[in-house]
Amino acid sequence: MEYQTILNEIQDEVLVLESKGAVADYIPQLGNVDATKFGVYLYGIESEGVSLGNAFEKFSIQSISKVYSLVLAMKVLDKDIWSRVGVEPSGDPFNSLTLLEYENGIPRNPFINSGAIVVADILMSYYQNPKEALLNFVRKISGNDAIDYNEKVAFSEKAHGYRNASLANLIKSFGNIHNDVDAILDFYFYQCSLEMSCQDLAKSFMIFANKGMLLDSDEVLIEPQQAKRINAIMQTCGFYDESGEFSFRVGLPGKSGVGGGIVAVHPGYYSVAVWSPKLNKKGNSYLGIEALERLTTKTGFSIF
Amino acid sequence: MEYQTILNEIQDEVLVLESKGAVADYIPQLGNVDATKFGVYLYGIESEGVSLGNAFEKFSIQSISKVYSLVLAMKVLDKDIWSRVGVEPSGDPFNSLTLLEYENGIPRNPFINSGAIVVADILMSYYQNPKEALLNFVRKISGNDAIDYNEKVAFSEKAHGYRNASLANLIKSFGNIHNDVDAILDFYFYQCSLEMSCQDLAKSFMIFANKGMLLDSDEVLIEPQQAKRINAIMQTCGFYDESGEFSFRVGLPGKSGVGGGIVAVHPGYYSVAVWSPKLNKKGNSYLGIEALERLTTKTGFSIF
Amino acid sequence: MEYQTILNEIQDEVLVLESKGAVADYIPQLGNVDATKFGVYLYGIESEGVSLGNAFEKFSIQSISKVYSLVLAMKVLDKDIWSRVGVEPSGDPFNSLTLLEYENGIPRNPFINSGAIVVADILMSYYQNPKEALLNFVRKISGNDAIDYNEKVAFSEKAHGYRNASLANLIKSFGNIHNDVDAILDFYFYQCSLEMSCQDLAKSFMIFANKGMLLDSDEVLIEPQQAKRINAIMQTCGFYDESGEFSFRVGLPGKSGVGGGIVAVHPGYYSVAVWSPKLNKKGNSYLGIEALERLTTKTGFSIF
Amino acid sequence: MEYQTILNEIQDEVLVLESKGAVADYIPQLGNVDATKFGVYLYGIESEGVSLGNAFEKFSIQSISKVYSLVLAMKVLDKDIWSRVGVEPSGDPFNSLTLLEYENGIPRNPFINSGAIVVADILMSYYQNPKEALLNFVRKISGNDAIDYNEKVAFSEKAHGYRNASLANLIKSFGNIHNDVDAILDFYFYQCSLEMSCQDLAKSFMIFANKGMLLDSDEVLIEPQQAKRINAIMQTCGFYDESGEFSFRVGLPGKSGVGGGIVAVHPGYYSVAVWSPKLNKKGNSYLGIEALERLTTKTGFSIF
Repeated sequence: MEYQTILNEIQDEVLVLESKGAVADYIPQLGNVDATKFGVYLYGIESEGVSLGNAFEKFSIQSISKVYSLVLAMKVLDKDIWSRVGVEPSGDPFNSLTLLEYENGIPRNPFINSGAIVVADILMSYYQNPKEALLNFVRKISGNDAIDYNEKVAFSEKAHGYRNASLANLIKSFGNIHNDVDAILDFYFYQCSLEMSCQDLAKSFMIFANKGMLLDSDEVLIEPQQAKRINAIMQTCGFYDESGEFSFRVGLPGKSGVGGGIVAVHPGYYSVAVWSPKLNKKGNSYLGIEALERLTTKTGFSIF
Repeated sequence: MEYQTILNEIQDEVLVLESKGAVADYIPQLGNVDATKFGVYLYGIESEGVSLGNAFEKFSIQSISKVYSLVLAMKVLDKDIWSRVGVEPSGDPFNSLTLLEYENGIPRNPFINSGAIVVADILMSYYQNPKEALLNFVRKISGNDAIDYNEKVAFSEKAHGYRNASLANLIKSFGNIHNDVDAILDFYFYQCSLEMSCQDLAKSFMIFANKGMLLDSDEVLIEPQQAKRINAIMQTCGFYDESGEFSFRVGLPGKSGVGGGIVAVHPGYYSVAVWSPKLNKKGNSYLGIEALERLTTKTGFSIF
Repeated sequence: MEYQTILNEIQDEVLVLESKGAVADYIPQLGNVDATKFGVYLYGIESEGVSLGNAFEKFSIQSISKVYSLVLAMKVLDKDIWSRVGVEPSGDPFNSLTLLEYENGIPRNPFINSGAIVVADILMSYYQNPKEALLNFVRKISGNDAIDYNEKVAFSEKAHGYRNASLANLIKSFGNIHNDVDAILDFYFYQCSLEMSCQDLAKSFMIFANKGMLLDSDEVLIEPQQAKRINAIMQTCGFYDESGEFSFRVGLPGKSGVGGGIVAVHPGYYSVAVWSPKLNKKGNSYLGIEALERLTTKTGFSIF
Repeated sequence: MEYQTILNEIQDEVLVLESKGAVADYIPQLGNVDATKFGVYLYGIESEGVSLGNAFEKFSIQSISKVYSLVLAMKVLDKDIWSRVGVEPSGDPFNSLTLLEYENGIPRNPFINSGAIVVADILMSYYQNPKEALLNFVRKISGNDAIDYNEKVAFSEKAHGYRNASLANLIKSFGNIHNDVDAILDFYFYQCSLEMSCQDLAKSFMIFANKGMLLDSDEVLIEPQQAKRINAIMQTCGFYDESGEFSFRVGLPGKSGVGGGIVAVHPGYYSVAVWSPKLNKKGNSYLGIEALERLTTKTGFSIF
């Protein structure tokens, strides 16, 4: 069956579901989004890209950005990362301080907030202008120079970011942040404010489906081994404390954000991005998971 | 490259490594095993089985048995399981009570001890003789009627099993065990005492590589969807609090036991079992992980 | 003002309060008690005993018995106790396993369940018949040979005692219980089933107000230093995770039980027992605390 | 026996002990103190003050200041405090975030860092210049206008205060801090930098021994009920997670600081301050506790 046909079926089935979730509203910029938005973009290795609904509209990617900053950090400093952040699922909500305290300021993995803050610190030690470096990298792998930060979102996150400030100060107290806490948080909130469409996201995640290479040019961006490892971390840690459930229902490595986006990858086959702003209780897009579960059921195969 | 050639290379590389681990010795039956044993058996979907070293010698499979009891429970009672046990990684050592208390007696997943105890309770409510039912099932999927429990091991586990008794009583206090606590523990300790060879393990796990069917006869033992889900749980929860690390280094769903065995599966391709008794600090076979990491590196592909 | 006058005033004020609590009902023998019972007995060092309401009626003393078993253990084995149980408040509900696991099976103090179970183990190692020894001791210090265990209550507790069985097995797994777990639990549940009146309780606690001596005979039962220390533990640990609140409101060392009893002591002055079966959310007698708060306010002095 | 005689005996016994502790050195201003300093000042209600050693030398009072800020807050705003901070011992080290997270930003008591930060916030909402208000209050109750903050210490604490910044931000994220986080921390670090002698400390704590009144003038500074309550909190929470041990060994309400000072009170009789910079593992003065334990043993009475 063609991917487009499958997507159309998914749309028919999913849009009649009652979305039980709620739009994230801890900052007004997220709360004001139209809750009925729904978009899908699927990019196959051996086929054209196919789309559904609001696939070309930009939204706040939030935690999905953690994958980009990790990739960039691995690209420039791979060996130095893994003594400062782990690769184990946290078993706790995405912002818990308990484990971080118990484990002496070494975050469980790079996809919980504390881990992403340490990765931000690593990038800040390496780059003169880490905001610019990250933006250039994201533009390159998604082939879209119009991608940008949303300064209002970044500013608003910062004004409400006491819990992240708590995390960053705790890590600093253990010596696992080397730069100024306020500067790190500023970079971190910028990174989360990136705005991209489903098409942008799916295209950029093709490097994880394509052994680290850009699909268009076969340019090697990261080693195949690195792509494999990022997929492994997305599989076990990509969905906060719902990672097991996502693995169980969907069976693909992926990453979600509180803006309602989810990107997933079937290595060797395709990457796919979904957007629907209402979140379930664990902070992941309610309809997004429904759509992706149908995708692996209808295509008849997942990584398992 | 042929699987046998790859296995030979792995043997050459791994056996010169210093195994930094230690044999489990909390019961004498485990402590007395020859620490230098090393065996591998790989069973390809489209090829003959290949072996290395002590691949045909039986050993105590311990926690690997949790996969068999889960499969049997899913086979007979799938829907009833998932309200009583979760599918999330625990983020804690395999025997922690903290999360269990915090989460009202619902174990995080079926591969930590508390979860396996609940699965044992489910089987005990269904079968008149659950020990016999489980043994018959394991014999069938491994095609080996000589497989059996080791009563001495079961008895010895029971005599040292205070922590498991603590877990079972805690779960019972929350109402998530329906049968008698002592009877459940007796069944649980029997299940862990199963003795199998690498060949037995690899053959029996072929159902997860082969969409739920026996390879020889194509008999459907579980639904393809169920095989996929068990693989997903093995991926995120199969190695206690080293599951992320195993996923990161090896990239296959699998399950380990403190007897030094590990079984892993590449869905659609092969199943493989390794045995080396020395364990790392997280309780997983030290050389076993080394061997499997080389396998996915040398074959050039994992599920990621 | 005379103690009797003060008690009468307290009765007038307290009995018009709406008791917001609920009677403990985890076993039928406790649930069936008349919720309107209310009794007070105060025993002054230099005055007659005075009483109020149902002061001479027996009820289930439950956790108050932990003081008796501790005193008996200190009397025979003082030095050996404090390496096996601490003297710090737990900061957690009375039956939490988390701290116990984190602190390797050494209970925080002898007044949480886990600590009392360790004390029971200490007595069981010392006495051939610890039930008899404890009963004789309680009869002696209260001057009432009619005091006895209630076997129905003990049996019923045991049949619902999964959480205590979980605690005992966990402690045993750390090696901090030396005798058989079932035997310890049997003794522990017997101890909790003791039935005494407010008069019995107040009289027996006089040894803590009177530097370790029986009031009638000046017989030294424990050293003054030991009486001081038990008062100190009651002060910081006597009311589960409401110990600070009791200290704050009442300002006396004391101990409560889920049967609705509270005994408190003003060293050098008096001991007092209150009984009202409805418990607040922390498991302490709602009206009992109200009455004792008025007592220290009206007498104008507490230990602080 | 005269207090002075008792103090002399204590000095003889304590100064020959090997102090197993270590001077706090997380900031240089504390680390540079002479570790052999030893001073005691005891102020009796019905007798002259008596002293020992370096009793008139100023040192950094650190956490002892938490008592002053609490008293001032109770004096101006009593009712408003207790919904924002509890009165229960924490059962955890003085700077733990775990409980704070679990209990939604309501600190367990005003004598752990998180609780003192909330009290600082309360004072900051009430006073235009809280630093000045607190300083004036401390000068008044100790009768010494030369008492002052040490700005170098305050500044140094701030430069190393990441864990306190983590606590403050976490509390703010729960809405239990109303003012600016940096401003609160600035005030908090100033408060901890107060420098006082044993004589100053003992004199100021007389209000807790004297039912809330200044001894010289009988001026009522706080209600008797408030004095009683502060004593109760000192008793259960004054020594971090060694409060039970202090109560058990010494039997007096008191408060310690990492500068090596301890102040304790026997309501109705005396207040006493000790200074010895070496701390035990729980952060309390090693010789200070030894001295106070001897004081209550030699005087033959404590509050128990």
